[in-house]
Amino acid sequence: MKFTIGRAAFTAQLIDVSRAIPSKATIPILTGIKITATKEGITLIGSDAEISIESFLSVQDDSLGLEIEETGSIVVTARIFNDIVRKLPTTKVTIETNEQFILTATSGEAIFSLNGTDGQSYPRLPEIESDRKINLPTVLFKELISQTIFSASNQESRPVLTGVHLMMNEGHITGVATDSHRLSRRQIPVEFTTDQANFEAITIPKKTLNELERIVQDDQMIEMIVTEQQVIFLIDNLTIYSRLLEGNYPDTDRLLPTSHTTEIVLNADQFLHAIDRASLMSHQGKNNVVQLDITDDNIDLSVQGSSLGSANESISAKSITGEPIKISFNPDYMKDALRSFSGVDINIGFTSSVRPLLISALEKSETPNNELLQLLTPIRTH
Amino acid sequence: MKFTIGRAAFTAQLIDVSRAIPSKATIPILTGIKITATKEGITLIGSDAEISIESFLSVQDDSLGLEIEETGSIVVTARIFNDIVRKLPTTKVTIETNEQFILTATSGEAIFSLNGTDGQSYPRLPEIESDRKINLPTVLFKELISQTIFSASNQESRPVLTGVHLMMNEGHITGVATDSHRLSRRQIPVEFTTDQANFEAITIPKKTLNELERIVQDDQMIEMIVTEQQVIFLIDNLTIYSRLLEGNYPDTDRLLPTSHTTEIVLNADQFLHAIDRASLMSHQGKNNVVQLDITDDNIDLSVQGSSLGSANESISAKSITGEPIKISFNPDYMKDALRSFSGVDINIGFTSSVRPLLISALEKSETPNNELLQLLTPIRTH
Repeated sequence: MKFTIGRAAFTAQLIDVSRAIPSKATIPILTGIKITATKEGITLIGSDAEISIESFLSVQDDSLGLEIEETGSIVVTARIFNDIVRKLPTTKVTIETNEQFILTATSGEAIFSLNGTDGQSYPRLPEIESDRKINLPTVLFKELISQTIFSASNQESRPVLTGVHLMMNEGHITGVATDSHRLSRRQIPVEFTTDQANFEAITIPKKTLNELERIVQDDQMIEMIVTEQQVIFLIDNLTIYSRLLEGNYPDTDRLLPTSHTTEIVLNADQFLHAIDRASLMSHQGKNNVVQLDITDDNIDLSVQGSSLGSANESISAKSITGEPIKISFNPDYMKDALRSFSGVDINIGFTSSVRPLLISALEKSETPNNELLQLLTPIRTH
Repeated sequence: MKFTIGRAAFTAQLIDVSRAIPSKATIPILTGIKITATKEGITLIGSDAEISIESFLSVQDDSLGLEIEETGSIVVTARIFNDIVRKLPTTKVTIETNEQFILTATSGEAIFSLNGTDGQSYPRLPEIESDRKINLPTVLFKELISQTIFSASNQESRPVLTGVHLMMNEGHITGVATDSHRLSRRQIPVEFTTDQANFEAITIPKKTLNELERIVQDDQMIEMIVTEQQVIFLIDNLTIYSRLLEGNYPDTDRLLPTSHTTEIVLNADQFLHAIDRASLMSHQGKNNVVQLDITDDNIDLSVQGSSLGSANESISAKSITGEPIKISFNPDYMKDALRSFSGVDINIGFTSSVRPLLISALEKSETPNNELLQLLTPIRTH
């Protein structure tokens, strides 16, 4: 294998692919990056067995300055290879391998030799065979990810809850995540064919969506392909493969309260800052709890009983309707939920001090099926 | 105690003083910040017993918006107090204490109560009694710190080497740091009176100088006061107290080679980048060593014998004079030394492959006693 490529473009692709590569792995070859040169271009692959990222650099893309002299493939340790390419002295780098699988990177006067492994010994990626394809609206889908992913569970005891659940329906996708203490639900409008609208629901691991959100730029297209056990995202020259989470996702619709006895309207950011202040004090105590005391004309936020001291703040609301209520909750969960509303005015609906509270934007979107809900289970303090 | 103060100015002073405050301490009161209100203003004190920082906020400084209603003093946990003040909702904060030493911070609708301790129980700072005072040239003294401090030892077995040694002489201060593998020496010109030029040399702990360098702005004045066991830095409204390191500092002048058998001239940054690249490979091996092979017309930098691979680079020099030489050294020490020259052309003098190499700027300063030297002991590889 021998090729020459522009160093900046090569570095950028190495960084994207390396997002999938673990620094330590029980299968040692997975700490490596697979580089394959064909007449058509260079393919880079990184994987941690759960998620794989593939990048194709075409000889026809003039911006890459790619010239292939000899085809072949090799696997080299990703971390050190990336560092070397990043720090080489000139704008071009020539990569060459020999029969002993030693890779040589040459740039200007600098020559690095790295011991590698035969590319044939790297696990193969699955063939993509599926007619279940959807073009996703990139900006909205990234919103769906960022507004739900924090509610996904970290507990491996119920693996299906560690992902975000996607349901494809007529005209929209619904994303749901829950760790059973809180629930996030975002609907986004998506144009579907009749076939697509009948896709089975899937649950995608948190890590996959995190990487997708980081890698994809707002102006790029995302194509999602669903197979029996995998989901594949195509973004320009990048392909992200991920396993799906198995297991029955709970029916979350029935958890959403349909009526409220108390409703308040306030600004998400102002409330966020007050919760953030109060959490300074709740973090000091054993129980990380803040209390909201809503009366006819006042909302009082407080933290009591920490050995260090207490916090108290009167919250200014745009409106308070319904019954007085006292309710306690985890301020960190509330902060995550409030942040997802990006500073708009919100409505918080309460049913009782032991039933979940529901947060939604005050102004509904003019587009149908474009809605964000955050559900938070209170903490019983008495 | 009761006073009102502008929150931004108060936060800035809390941050400076808190630099001295440890997050955990064997003497619990030292995790606190002492706040004292007198008719003249507010004094803040933080300390870890080795270094103490005091800030005085005067009622006469209009920019502080300081109004004192009641004098007194209290100690509260620094970390949480700083976080609270930083996150309060309005531009002013009112601090009030009661007889149970509970501090109340009020800002807009937010009220925080913090359990504190009587300010009388906080250790007293030493009285400054000394006529040994020097006005330091701020920018030059900060250079002296940053260009020597990395060579100070981390080994507590010889405490005096963990600091920077300062020698006051006619017209200049010399700062030296060494961990016995390398040595940094910076001279800066300073106007002295005859008395000052006869000050005894002192050794200041690394941490003190690090904090001083971070706190002092280039346009601020530094006054240094030396007492029997302490050094005190006065910077506007801030006072930094530090103990001095005890013990005889080694006579380092005799370590500096006076003649060389080989000399090379090259650019500090270009060489730094090449060493940085080569160190990617040397960090993989057991011995973190790079080798320089200097012949009549070539300088070759290489790393051999790592299980992962090797690195090789031909270094472009502006001149090579003297005998051919092969010499090996720790690339991380070399990187520290090279960075201190900020990209100028440098001269590296060699005597033999087992004697220290000496780095100096090619162009000498027009000002007398304004010189930087870096000494690096090679590693014997045969």
